[in-house]
Amino acid sequence: MAKRLVVVGGVAGGTSAAAKAKRTNPQWEVVIFEKGPYVSYGGCGLPYYVEGEIEKKEDLVVRWPRQFREQGIEVYTQSEVKVLDIDKGEVEVFHSEEGETRRYPYDALVIATGAKPLVPPFPGKDLGGIHVLRTPNQGEAIRKELESGKVKRAVVVGGGFIGVEMCEALAPWGVDVTVVELLDQILPPMDRDMADLVAKYLQEKGVRILTGHGVEGFLGDRRVKKVVAGGEEIPADMVILSIGVRPNVDLAKEAGIQLGPTGAIAASERMETNVGVVYTAGDCAEARHIITGEPVYIPLGTTANKMGRVAGTNAVGGDAVFKGVLGTVIFKAMELGGAMTGLTEKDAVRRGIPYKVARITARDRAHYYPGGQRITVKLVYHAETGKLLGGQIVGHWTSVKRIDAVAVALYAGLTVEDFSRQDLAYAPPFSPVWDPLLVAANRAVK
Amino acid sequence: MAKRLVVVGGVAGGTSAAAKAKRTNPQWEVVIFEKGPYVSYGGCGLPYYVEGEIEKKEDLVVRWPRQFREQGIEVYTQSEVKVLDIDKGEVEVFHSEEGETRRYPYDALVIATGAKPLVPPFPGKDLGGIHVLRTPNQGEAIRKELESGKVKRAVVVGGGFIGVEMCEALAPWGVDVTVVELLDQILPPMDRDMADLVAKYLQEKGVRILTGHGVEGFLGDRRVKKVVAGGEEIPADMVILSIGVRPNVDLAKEAGIQLGPTGAIAASERMETNVGVVYTAGDCAEARHIITGEPVYIPLGTTANKMGRVAGTNAVGGDAVFKGVLGTVIFKAMELGGAMTGLTEKDAVRRGIPYKVARITARDRAHYYPGGQRITVKLVYHAETGKLLGGQIVGHWTSVKRIDAVAVALYAGLTVEDFSRQDLAYAPPFSPVWDPLLVAANRAVK
Repeated sequence: MAKRLVVVGGVAGGTSAAAKAKRTNPQWEVVIFEKGPYVSYGGCGLPYYVEGEIEKKEDLVVRWPRQFREQGIEVYTQSEVKVLDIDKGEVEVFHSEEGETRRYPYDALVIATGAKPLVPPFPGKDLGGIHVLRTPNQGEAIRKELESGKVKRAVVVGGGFIGVEMCEALAPWGVDVTVVELLDQILPPMDRDMADLVAKYLQEKGVRILTGHGVEGFLGDRRVKKVVAGGEEIPADMVILSIGVRPNVDLAKEAGIQLGPTGAIAASERMETNVGVVYTAGDCAEARHIITGEPVYIPLGTTANKMGRVAGTNAVGGDAVFKGVLGTVIFKAMELGGAMTGLTEKDAVRRGIPYKVARITARDRAHYYPGGQRITVKLVYHAETGKLLGGQIVGHWTSVKRIDAVAVALYAGLTVEDFSRQDLAYAPPFSPVWDPLLVAANRAVK
Repeated sequence: MAKRLVVVGGVAGGTSAAAKAKRTNPQWEVVIFEKGPYVSYGGCGLPYYVEGEIEKKEDLVVRWPRQFREQGIEVYTQSEVKVLDIDKGEVEVFHSEEGETRRYPYDALVIATGAKPLVPPFPGKDLGGIHVLRTPNQGEAIRKELESGKVKRAVVVGGGFIGVEMCEALAPWGVDVTVVELLDQILPPMDRDMADLVAKYLQEKGVRILTGHGVEGFLGDRRVKKVVAGGEEIPADMVILSIGVRPNVDLAKEAGIQLGPTGAIAASERMETNVGVVYTAGDCAEARHIITGEPVYIPLGTTANKMGRVAGTNAVGGDAVFKGVLGTVIFKAMELGGAMTGLTEKDAVRRGIPYKVARITARDRAHYYPGGQRITVKLVYHAETGKLLGGQIVGHWTSVKRIDAVAVALYAGLTVEDFSRQDLAYAPPFSPVWDPLLVAANRAVK
């Protein structure tokens, strides 16, 4: 009888694992259980679906169950794994459409249960018009309200990357947006000087930004009418909670699978948990930080896909390793873009790493080529060894993907002096003769 | 008395050397002699000036003589160094405006005499309407003819990077363009499969491409009327010769300065020539190839600037090294872009390096995000060690700057497996969840 790989969770990490496992070892039976109605959708596209840039929520689906089946992978949607029985090597699955619970034995397992939005126990949090955005159906609920034309004022709670993307998403609907952020800056993972460039841009576009203020609660009858924050009652027809996510680890925890210091599932380089034949991938799993070597929880679509491939390969007898993450992030807010990779200045401070900073503002094209825009690059590097620790960029959104060159340099362990010697591509429409990355590196080594 | 640095040639390499020397050691007197009327102009912008994207030729000037003088650098334009007297440590300069020749002693010298367009002895090559494009005044001559409205048909001789850029430059003038290329492909430094993608695009845009045909001569009275190539007489009201350039080394050669195997001036990592206190930089100088370690001649604006900084630093007693080049090139042809870095497949064949290729075509954005375009990535890597040897990209012009990530990986000596692990930036407007670079790397390691 064929061996069976069970994959718990069918979004990025789970479907990557399943697909890679089947390609690695086609003799294995591969089964995905997903509690929601969709598998393999691009969750990162949800803000753009809300915005209207993407027409239908179905457009976000990368692969349909039919496509997995054609590849020999069985997919059960609306099927939640309720119990993970490690002793017996079985999962207990509740198929909600049939209302039936069945048990399935496995020879290997991948836990890819993802993450869920943080929703603190704010008074009034269950009022209508208060949303989180994690699934296509949640996106649809938000978009329907926007399409009704009744949403004039929205409050985005949490000014992180998703919060900033939501400012873009709400703009074309003619909604007045207020962002409420508990910390003293938006985009908390970035350094404040860089985040402030984004805040200033959003303010120029009419977004109100309230930092240093926690939400105290929501007021309204059936629907939300006001957000109480910073001693103020902010009128709101809609609220988006984008405070962050936490890993979905209940299933794993109950089964005795070890969590790491971040609260996510601890995993080896091979994406093994502490239990034999049980692997993990995606937003429920911890990763190693490439610079610090420490476990971190930075849930991202790219990481989920990479982890999934590794978990899927190893689960069916292959051999692959996941080297970790730099926390590379990129975002677009209307015409502005931002990106970061590696450690920030405040990360260095927090860890007591002796560091220096080179920060420059330049043009993103030759000065004489039309359409050039300002771009700010910040490099953080070790004060003694010169080794690059991280980079951040804010500029026109078409220019910030150059963060990738910094990410590769970090992976390779280059010094800022090495980085200043890179043979980066130049022609007037693409960059000044000194790419802004090199201008920053030259500032460091001058 | 202050020591004097004389810089021969005032475009990219020369002005970089002068500026860096003055910053490194302000006590030195720094003098630039430039035979043309302009210093410090962006030669790479000339096609865009011809196109009309850039209004005035003066817009191409990066810094005017006045700005150098304010920095304490003396600039003489229309001043050609005719003799380099190494024994006496003097240069003899012909100041063409005054019609005077003077001699200037130096304590250190930077030769940055650049390159000149190759113009083979074609019959009829001196007819009107036949142009090279290397200086602002040459650009102006071309643009004036285009503005006259009399140019209906143009022939671009040489289908290299500049030739392809000229296809874009001529397009908005409503000119029928034929490219004549001696070799069997356009863009000879790239692999043919990648260059053919560009050729196909240009043909779709109405450019006629004639490969494998050398020019035999030009016909006409005072102005060119026909180009004879491949046994055909191609009607032409204008001809652009973009066959390539060769280094301007006459001055150096006469002074006994050693040339390298490429015919350009041989230089150490510190940009020293074989003669003490004489340095070189820019399009007249040879560079070391970072992958092969061999001397190469790949004249580019970025390289000239980097070499200039190193030559300028060392000439006045500082200490800097130029680590070499990967031959990273990027170009735009209307909406298409292309880029390359490191070795191509045919470079590997020529050198007998055992290699493998991974070539993929993907989308440059998430499949559901509007405006995505096809992008083709080709990676060449060592068949035994897996070490990356080079990369080439063809896609929408806004997507090809990602070649920089490959360039950094090459500098760092990463394997293609390492490269597949890069934490590159992802959000739907910027890339699919697997960046096309990673898709190519995954293809290699699958």
